[in-house]
Amino acid sequence: MATPHDFSSKVFQVDTLDLGNGHTEKIVKGGRNLLPLLPKAFAGIKQIGVIGWGSQGPAQAQNLRDSLEGTSIKVKVGLRAGSSSFAEAEKVGFSNAHGTLGDMFDTVKESDLVLLLISDGAQSELFSKVFELMKPGATLGLSHGYLLGHLKNVGAKFPTNINVIAVCPKGMGPSVRRLYVQGKEVNGAGINASFAVEQDIDGKATDIALGWSVALGSPYTFQTTLESEFKSDIYGERGILLGAVWGIVESLYRRYIGQGQSHEEAFRQTAESVTGPISKTISKQGILALYEGLDAAGKKTFEQAYSASYPASREVLQEIYDEVSNGNEIRSVNLAGERLKKRPMGKIDGTEMWQTGKKVRAARDEAKIPLNPFTAGIFTACMMAQIDILLEAGHPYSEAANESVIEAVDSLNPYMHSRGVAYMVDNCSITARLGTRKWAPRFDYNLQTQAYVDIDNSAPVDAKLIEAFKKNPIHAALAACAKVRPSVDIFVE
Amino acid sequence: MATPHDFSSKVFQVDTLDLGNGHTEKIVKGGRNLLPLLPKAFAGIKQIGVIGWGSQGPAQAQNLRDSLEGTSIKVKVGLRAGSSSFAEAEKVGFSNAHGTLGDMFDTVKESDLVLLLISDGAQSELFSKVFELMKPGATLGLSHGYLLGHLKNVGAKFPTNINVIAVCPKGMGPSVRRLYVQGKEVNGAGINASFAVEQDIDGKATDIALGWSVALGSPYTFQTTLESEFKSDIYGERGILLGAVWGIVESLYRRYIGQGQSHEEAFRQTAESVTGPISKTISKQGILALYEGLDAAGKKTFEQAYSASYPASREVLQEIYDEVSNGNEIRSVNLAGERLKKRPMGKIDGTEMWQTGKKVRAARDEAKIPLNPFTAGIFTACMMAQIDILLEAGHPYSEAANESVIEAVDSLNPYMHSRGVAYMVDNCSITARLGTRKWAPRFDYNLQTQAYVDIDNSAPVDAKLIEAFKKNPIHAALAACAKVRPSVDIFVE
Repeated sequence: MATPHDFSSKVFQVDTLDLGNGHTEKIVKGGRNLLPLLPKAFAGIKQIGVIGWGSQGPAQAQNLRDSLEGTSIKVKVGLRAGSSSFAEAEKVGFSNAHGTLGDMFDTVKESDLVLLLISDGAQSELFSKVFELMKPGATLGLSHGYLLGHLKNVGAKFPTNINVIAVCPKGMGPSVRRLYVQGKEVNGAGINASFAVEQDIDGKATDIALGWSVALGSPYTFQTTLESEFKSDIYGERGILLGAVWGIVESLYRRYIGQGQSHEEAFRQTAESVTGPISKTISKQGILALYEGLDAAGKKTFEQAYSASYPASREVLQEIYDEVSNGNEIRSVNLAGERLKKRPMGKIDGTEMWQTGKKVRAARDEAKIPLNPFTAGIFTACMMAQIDILLEAGHPYSEAANESVIEAVDSLNPYMHSRGVAYMVDNCSITARLGTRKWAPRFDYNLQTQAYVDIDNSAPVDAKLIEAFKKNPIHAALAACAKVRPSVDIFVE
Repeated sequence: MATPHDFSSKVFQVDTLDLGNGHTEKIVKGGRNLLPLLPKAFAGIKQIGVIGWGSQGPAQAQNLRDSLEGTSIKVKVGLRAGSSSFAEAEKVGFSNAHGTLGDMFDTVKESDLVLLLISDGAQSELFSKVFELMKPGATLGLSHGYLLGHLKNVGAKFPTNINVIAVCPKGMGPSVRRLYVQGKEVNGAGINASFAVEQDIDGKATDIALGWSVALGSPYTFQTTLESEFKSDIYGERGILLGAVWGIVESLYRRYIGQGQSHEEAFRQTAESVTGPISKTISKQGILALYEGLDAAGKKTFEQAYSASYPASREVLQEIYDEVSNGNEIRSVNLAGERLKKRPMGKIDGTEMWQTGKKVRAARDEAKIPLNPFTAGIFTACMMAQIDILLEAGHPYSEAANESVIEAVDSLNPYMHSRGVAYMVDNCSITARLGTRKWAPRFDYNLQTQAYVDIDNSAPVDAKLIEAFKKNPIHAALAACAKVRPSVDIFVE
């Protein structure tokens, strides 16, 4: 896979992020102080059309509008005729009367920058019409490389008379909005984003992308390609971000109950431990600190869990990466879209585990949530395997770090901590919901049939694997990433 | 999907099987009395090359050799240079010295009928070379439509100067051999097979296929197409034949333990019940008899389980069918083949459930294995959903019946009963092992998150679904299929 090229900007300062491991990456730091530069970055753009009101739509439309307040650039939300989201958009101030809310296709036609934030399935269905309607010379903005993957599968291409760019926040929409609002007090708080320039017909594409990212409130923006983005994004959410975390806690919950724990206690030692202290420690101090903070017995337990489960999780992760890369996963999502028209997806949160979880959360004493070293070892091994596969495939460090660690501990897991892992799984994008249902059970079964069997048979710790964990270059990269972003506890209702 | 055409034979009697539900199918009944017709069916064929020594290879090579004893037609086994299977083939009487064992590619070159029984992955890798080496005018025989699916994916075609046929026994190789041997005492015992003629360049293809099937000992042979075959076969093994049965018993085992059963008792009420009395009742009396044999309370429990789980299992089955049909599943198997070169598949039978199973089987009193009505309802619902999808997609009744019922209860489940479901999963073809690992967890999770939640929330029985079950046209078709095949208890060591 081609890694992203170098880039320069006529508007924003480009910094070099020293990853502390012999590598550097070009980045643009964000912040409210940069908002006055937006009109220059968006030169020639009179209207930004935000198409769709799913996860990213509401967040991006509002952040862009707020960031562009006082300029002549209009942010207009475009929705499908008859969509129930019109009411939602009106609630936060977009309106037909002010010309900031309208029909999706009209908005595509009028806008100079079209942010296509409809679901992946809808993109697969509607891309030809959107391409046809776009003004020559306009810019198509994506927040995800999915469409490129789909075009490759069906042998189609982007029109050659438009710019094609992407800004991909490394967190779900609600976090992008929530942290932007919090960022009004703490300058620079927000969700990191990657950007990609797929087509640049007028030399402005990079600055439009960077302007868009700064306007969203990204603490820092790193470069990727659409291809690298869709691979890492679809892979990441099927892995530790959603699929793996669900499968891991299900398998551990059963294991601990089988070992005699009460259901409530097992929930605390698994889901609560992951979304609470494990995620918080990684967020504030990094992955290695999680291990180093354990006592001798805890370290030994962590090592056993890590050592036995790294290969089991890695096997599933490699399969996911291959399936995403060869287009199968995108084909599957499109096929599922057809089935979903007849029968909607069921919820997953009705099972005993998640019902117990509700009770446990209701009675939660945050300070008393255990940091279970076995749970930590299983979770960390999967996270590290995910990172290792991304780095070996040539993804940028920032992409690996954000898709595997920062998005987990700073965006998704805080939501899971507040509302439950199952709630999160039931309320993410359709592509992610499908992928989570597909892969979580695979992590569960692989851990159960391979890792836990090895552990119960007292398989020796793989010292090389533990050594590789300790020396992994991602630790320095995470520390470097943390420095370009103020530490803010995301506030989740 | 195109359904198979009518066919006629110059050698064998073609019968019309009245399916008792308004449909008929053309079939050829088997039996030892037909063996004298083989030289006529195989006119012009001096050597049959059996390539590969996996599941089907040993069975087919031996059955063909035994059936052709006393004729001038030679059966030669061809293996890859250096293969450890040479010794296995020698053990059962094939030998270099007698010209009945040799190099795979030499055997392809020399043979007039080449039975390509190497693994699906090897077929994907080696098909070009095999096509190149085959004599013009020779016949390529497959026991599975996989290669057609692969050729479609990669845009390749069969050479136009050869016949291409398939004979696909609806049971694994060891059953094909075992029942053939038993068939020496009970004329006509064996594993049913489908046949397909993909290319017929000389008008002989149908009779070569029918001769091959009769020589294998198929009690009856029905017509299909290569496309219909690969879809139903790959789908079926991912469904009730292997994937679903594993996922079902795992989910039920946990459920019953959660309800207070001992581990041994839960194993008896799940895996033992399925592979024992449930399979035996279906084998001898049909699916409906399983339900009708229950008492009033049992019927109610069965209906609840059936009603809640049919949609949950059907959802996964429809996904499998779609994934197989669009080529994704075959692409996945090929991708996995690359990974398996680096890291072999782990076993699944080390978990507590299957270790408990060993103890339960060792202490088994066959007569005391319970026919659990809840387990029966879950298992049957999945089986019926599998059948319904196949019939709706236009597959022949014989194909639906064999791929969903007869192969399960008369070939695979008896092996599972003897050695364990996990043993079976660890010892089937690579394509099946991959598919089982991929889909079993999906059935498990869908039952757990959807069906069992509904049952625990006392969801009402769907009377229409139960009515549709009782009136399903497959029941008459199964009864009709049973009549053309002597009932033999397969003997498994």
